[in-house]
Amino acid sequence: MIMKPIDGEFIDELNRLIFRRTNRKKRYEEDPDNAWNCCSWCEYLLIVILSTILLVGVLVLTLFWVMFYRDGFAWSESPKQQFNLHPILMIAGFVTLSGFSILIYRLCRCVKHIYVKLIHMFFHAVAIPCIALGFLAVFDSHDALQKVNFYSLHSWLGLVTMGMFVLQFVIGFFSFLVMLCCENKTYSCRSAMVPIHASLGLANFWLAIATSVTGLIEKERETVKETSVSSENKLVEHYITSAIGITLIFIGIIVTFAVRRSNAPASAKVYVTERI
Amino acid sequence: MIMKPIDGEFIDELNRLIFRRTNRKKRYEEDPDNAWNCCSWCEYLLIVILSTILLVGVLVLTLFWVMFYRDGFAWSESPKQQFNLHPILMIAGFVTLSGFSILIYRLCRCVKHIYVKLIHMFFHAVAIPCIALGFLAVFDSHDALQKVNFYSLHSWLGLVTMGMFVLQFVIGFFSFLVMLCCENKTYSCRSAMVPIHASLGLANFWLAIATSVTGLIEKERETVKETSVSSENKLVEHYITSAIGITLIFIGIIVTFAVRRSNAPASAKVYVTERI
Repeated sequence: MIMKPIDGEFIDELNRLIFRRTNRKKRYEEDPDNAWNCCSWCEYLLIVILSTILLVGVLVLTLFWVMFYRDGFAWSESPKQQFNLHPILMIAGFVTLSGFSILIYRLCRCVKHIYVKLIHMFFHAVAIPCIALGFLAVFDSHDALQKVNFYSLHSWLGLVTMGMFVLQFVIGFFSFLVMLCCENKTYSCRSAMVPIHASLGLANFWLAIATSVTGLIEKERETVKETSVSSENKLVEHYITSAIGITLIFIGIIVTFAVRRSNAPASAKVYVTERI
Repeated sequence: MIMKPIDGEFIDELNRLIFRRTNRKKRYEEDPDNAWNCCSWCEYLLIVILSTILLVGVLVLTLFWVMFYRDGFAWSESPKQQFNLHPILMIAGFVTLSGFSILIYRLCRCVKHIYVKLIHMFFHAVAIPCIALGFLAVFDSHDALQKVNFYSLHSWLGLVTMGMFVLQFVIGFFSFLVMLCCENKTYSCRSAMVPIHASLGLANFWLAIATSVTGLIEKERETVKETSVSSENKLVEHYITSAIGITLIFIGIIVTFAVRRSNAPASAKVYVTERI
């Protein structure tokens, strides 16, 4: 019962719908929603280049900061140097690896969906030891320096971030990999979980960024009190930590922008004529 | 040219598509994607109650902190008291008003779409004077105290947040209100803008939260150095600012969760039979 004469736009949408249904198995690779035009190519390249520069850049910048302004690393010999592993490992796990893991859904457009899922999980799985070691590093160094654990706002935010990370990993693993054993029966359940997993994942990524920025500020404020550091060195360090903070923020913006859902997919091949 | 026998799920999706097209004028109010079941009712109520408590709560908590631990407000008489307007006005503008403004799209489900847009714009428009005054308050008080402006990471993040807020407001105003003057011709353009505006809006909201949290930490670290405040008072103040920070983070999570896009809309009225 069609109430009004059907227009071209409607036919386009019908075509897409029928194409998607009749090519169910290939829906990720050949879905006309994925059809590329010049504009989406430019956007894709821009996102790939910019995000790689920012995600790797923030790690290099943090490494530079820790090596040249915080006396580098050590494990149990010096608690201060042990602490230095914390920012590096947390940014590697929560920002660089998680960031690439989220962007995989945009970057790998020609890869089978199950492989994209596996790469997504792999990146997060690699992030886990980084985060665990980063957590241990700060815990151990606080114990050695007889500092109180879980006092600052940064530590509380970190705890929420880690809790949500574990929750998301477990949910993601069971919903999108284990449930695949009976693909058709779990379709509606998995489909309902996608937007929840995606939105909470994005929230967790921003939470990690906010936590990192608070950590940077707390560390910088500690240096202000130290009289052993020259004021010129303090100023340069301030610019470096600020650059790390600003980079983190731009990473958040570009990742949120990259994973937005399309509202008006590009039209593609016509499988249905107006005679339907 | 339909290649395979069509199934029930496909018919459902066709129905939704045709229903949407033939009811273009009413697509927001009666769209079957908006069909409610018990679960979505519960989620709706939970989001309304929780978000209202958190969004109003964070403002009340900040007011309490400023009034009882920071000596309240004043404009030009005392620079320190003038500064106190900054956290209140910024949290009111960037978090409480912007938060409600974003959630309006979820909360007002039975209101005409154009009214939802206008309410969304109204909330953001009210946020503008709050933000402008909050900015002036800190600028004026820094000048009076002869402090350097735009030195800290917090101030840089704040600048990015304000820039993005203005950009989003201008884009939103022209794309979704001014362009309505020739509704049909600008349909595809407006439709393409929706996901960009939505994703950047969410990024900006998180950015505002991250900036607020860094501001809280900077202020707290300043107090640590003040010897005039008793250590017991400092501890209570620490718990209050931490509570504000944690509330801000939960606001971010609930808003991101609330505005997620549905992946599997509930099926609704059947307008097309299998005979099509």
